[in-house]
Amino acid sequence: MLDYKLLEALAAIVDQGGFERGAQQLNLTQSAVSQRIKLLEARLGQPVVVRTPRLLPTPLGQRLLNHAQQVRLLEHDLLDRIPALGEGTQRLRLAINADSLATWWAPTIGDFCHRRGVLLDLVVDDQEVALRRMRDGEVAGCICATARPVQGARARALGRMRYRVAASPGFAERYFVEGVSTQALARAPAILYGPDDRLQQRYLDSQGFKEPFPHHLCPSSEGVLHMVLAGIGYALIPECQAQAAFERGELVDLDPSRPLDVPLYWHFWRHGGELLDALTVHLFSASDDWLLPMETSASAGA
Amino acid sequence: MLDYKLLEALAAIVDQGGFERGAQQLNLTQSAVSQRIKLLEARLGQPVVVRTPRLLPTPLGQRLLNHAQQVRLLEHDLLDRIPALGEGTQRLRLAINADSLATWWAPTIGDFCHRRGVLLDLVVDDQEVALRRMRDGEVAGCICATARPVQGARARALGRMRYRVAASPGFAERYFVEGVSTQALARAPAILYGPDDRLQQRYLDSQGFKEPFPHHLCPSSEGVLHMVLAGIGYALIPECQAQAAFERGELVDLDPSRPLDVPLYWHFWRHGGELLDALTVHLFSASDDWLLPMETSASAGA
Repeated sequence: MLDYKLLEALAAIVDQGGFERGAQQLNLTQSAVSQRIKLLEARLGQPVVVRTPRLLPTPLGQRLLNHAQQVRLLEHDLLDRIPALGEGTQRLRLAINADSLATWWAPTIGDFCHRRGVLLDLVVDDQEVALRRMRDGEVAGCICATARPVQGARARALGRMRYRVAASPGFAERYFVEGVSTQALARAPAILYGPDDRLQQRYLDSQGFKEPFPHHLCPSSEGVLHMVLAGIGYALIPECQAQAAFERGELVDLDPSRPLDVPLYWHFWRHGGELLDALTVHLFSASDDWLLPMETSASAGA
Repeated sequence: MLDYKLLEALAAIVDQGGFERGAQQLNLTQSAVSQRIKLLEARLGQPVVVRTPRLLPTPLGQRLLNHAQQVRLLEHDLLDRIPALGEGTQRLRLAINADSLATWWAPTIGDFCHRRGVLLDLVVDDQEVALRRMRDGEVAGCICATARPVQGARARALGRMRYRVAASPGFAERYFVEGVSTQALARAPAILYGPDDRLQQRYLDSQGFKEPFPHHLCPSSEGVLHMVLAGIGYALIPECQAQAAFERGELVDLDPSRPLDVPLYWHFWRHGGELLDALTVHLFSASDDWLLPMETSASAGA
């Protein structure tokens, strides 16, 4: 078997961002940790970390870390049955789409983290990057709009996130006083999450609108909401994120009869161990309050 | 002089994420736009964009785009005086720190965008990346905690953002019932923005705490807030972001006598034209409502 002491040293220095703090985490001297990394690199004949500009794993180091994480998840199952073996705290690295993180994720997961002593390493990515991370084994699970699992993983439909076309009352008055029209869409600045914002494109397609339109770019879910509240543009906002502002009259729905729904899927390692399976069960029992049920045709993909 | 028709074609396809939509933006056929890009690449002897997995500028293409943006800013000054020359809409690419985007940025800038017909391309980065983007000319301005301007730019102190050590009442009850102590900090999960979260480190240093501590990672300003609200951990949260939750009793301040202040600086191109200068004036008149004045010693760096 591999020498897990060496992998543990690697995980600690990467986790803590340095040799000194990594050594503290392991209750070792810095020189002992350096020795282990040197030994690991000597055995492999390649570096496992780069030191500058800041400490980061090399691609090889990352593969070792992924393996170590998988082993830890399996160990966690064992520790559940033999608690005396370990302290029972477990890190779980997951990729989450920005709108989920800004809305239903934290309230849904809070209780689970506390109950199971889980520490989360979240990464926020667009879905292509998130699926690549799944494929590379870099994350143990991800939430995205793609139904098809990567190899070695499963995907389950969580539900639909509903989006509303939202604007401040002043902005609506200025640009959309006669409702949503081709003229209005050609003039009113939209706020997009990124240059290839598919949701905005889907909305414009649904309107038969194919012309260029002015737009701001803001790669932050809450940043978009704040910009809409400030009257800078209109945007597609998750209904559950905008609801309170709709009720307070701070936002208006420009197109109430035409919400857009995005299906969300939970992808997770097939052999990720009991903790990941328990998280899966928990997500499905708790996300109902926030997401709409899948339509029959859409859920078939899962 | 350079053939700006070619640069304009490059900017349009990158801006719109494809040749077809780029051509629409310019009211040209797709084949005319392809011709221009081919001509540009033939003259340079190098590609300016990569097509897969999605259309992105090469480093050379990016340098051309930066130059085109600078020229446009200068043109904008001209157009202000000779409005018949153009339509007067102007894109401004800026790097903003996540906490500013989640709090004071949008309310402060909204009116300016509308009045001046400005469209924003925002990027969210940690400050090292933001300053690199300034240095590379990729953004016209940035907001970060570093006082020292990069070459060709100026930096001005905007004010201090105040952070509070926040937790949900339930979390505070569970871990901090006897206040902030070494024991409590060693047990209570913190929520960090990233592995080298300097603010958390500064807070722990101020407590004389040097041991490892459990932590979640969440690279989203509002994600951190939501996780704190959900009782998953404690975190340093901008006071202006947490204020409403403090007042509603959804969050408590774990260490009211010890807020942490982070100075914020506005970096902008020295010869960025009248629009950028006007934005600078606007930012200084409007950010007062959200940021505390600089302390005398800290403002000297600007």
